[in-house]
Amino acid sequence: MDSIEEIVAANRLDAARYRAPAGPHRPRLALVACMDARIDPWQAFGLKQGSTHVIRNAGGRLADAIRSIAISQVMLDTDAVAIVHHTDCGLLTFSDETMRARLREERGAIADDIAFLPFADQEKALRDDLALYRQTPFLRQDIPVRAFVYDLKTGALREVV
Amino acid sequence: MDSIEEIVAANRLDAARYRAPAGPHRPRLALVACMDARIDPWQAFGLKQGSTHVIRNAGGRLADAIRSIAISQVMLDTDAVAIVHHTDCGLLTFSDETMRARLREERGAIADDIAFLPFADQEKALRDDLALYRQTPFLRQDIPVRAFVYDLKTGALREVV
Repeated sequence: MDSIEEIVAANRLDAARYRAPAGPHRPRLALVACMDARIDPWQAFGLKQGSTHVIRNAGGRLADAIRSIAISQVMLDTDAVAIVHHTDCGLLTFSDETMRARLREERGAIADDIAFLPFADQEKALRDDLALYRQTPFLRQDIPVRAFVYDLKTGALREVV
Repeated sequence: MDSIEEIVAANRLDAARYRAPAGPHRPRLALVACMDARIDPWQAFGLKQGSTHVIRNAGGRLADAIRSIAISQVMLDTDAVAIVHHTDCGLLTFSDETMRARLREERGAIADDIAFLPFADQEKALRDDLALYRQTPFLRQDIPVRAFVYDLKTGALREVV
């Protein structure tokens, strides 16, 4: 079975025992995390239904999350942001030049104007993301914004300041 | 307890019983979904650890997912994409003008150059996202790319073509 048919089949089973969320939801947190296939944020961070906007992208980088955080804050009044990167992240393994060269070779496509946002230094990447948040005036500056590394070996969060 | 302290405390409990993923992971699917706080993609779509890159943003819009999908395909060889929007989505409730006006009034900030990607027509938004995928030559065009609406009342997926 292909991977899309697998989620369609699994969803059919889940829908059979599904109970719709009751009443309005009031999320308080916007959580930015990596798309990594090994991480289940609901499990790892004990999320409760309705509590958290989960924004995920390659690396858990802030640049791709700004639009979503703004909407989260303006439309649903979330009042905290957590940015979570993780150990053994794929973004540590390549450069913009690698990505562009492979896209050119494998697809004949030019992606020279795309910033793929890889990083060589995990803590610096998180500090850069915190700085980008602070430099974005339409995001709330009066709330906690904290950055963490999730350790895939231990399952534990470590804060980076 | 504030919402960030809540995830830190929940993670401490989870880490105590955590088992690290064994061996390399080989994700096959890139799943784009909305950040909505009521949706747990692992539960709703039966995801297995290591199987799926989960990319989430406000609305599950493709524009914010392009960088991540490219990395998913080049670096981890995923060979399918599912784009999942959902009923009762917040993105159906405002316009770019609303967002810009509120950011101006509430924060004194100008965000007139940001496209917040709201939509008035759910199926059109998904078809626009499929079209944007097809117009992006550095994304793989030789694989299944399918679009769905997840119904929060029933928990079921419905494909949009």
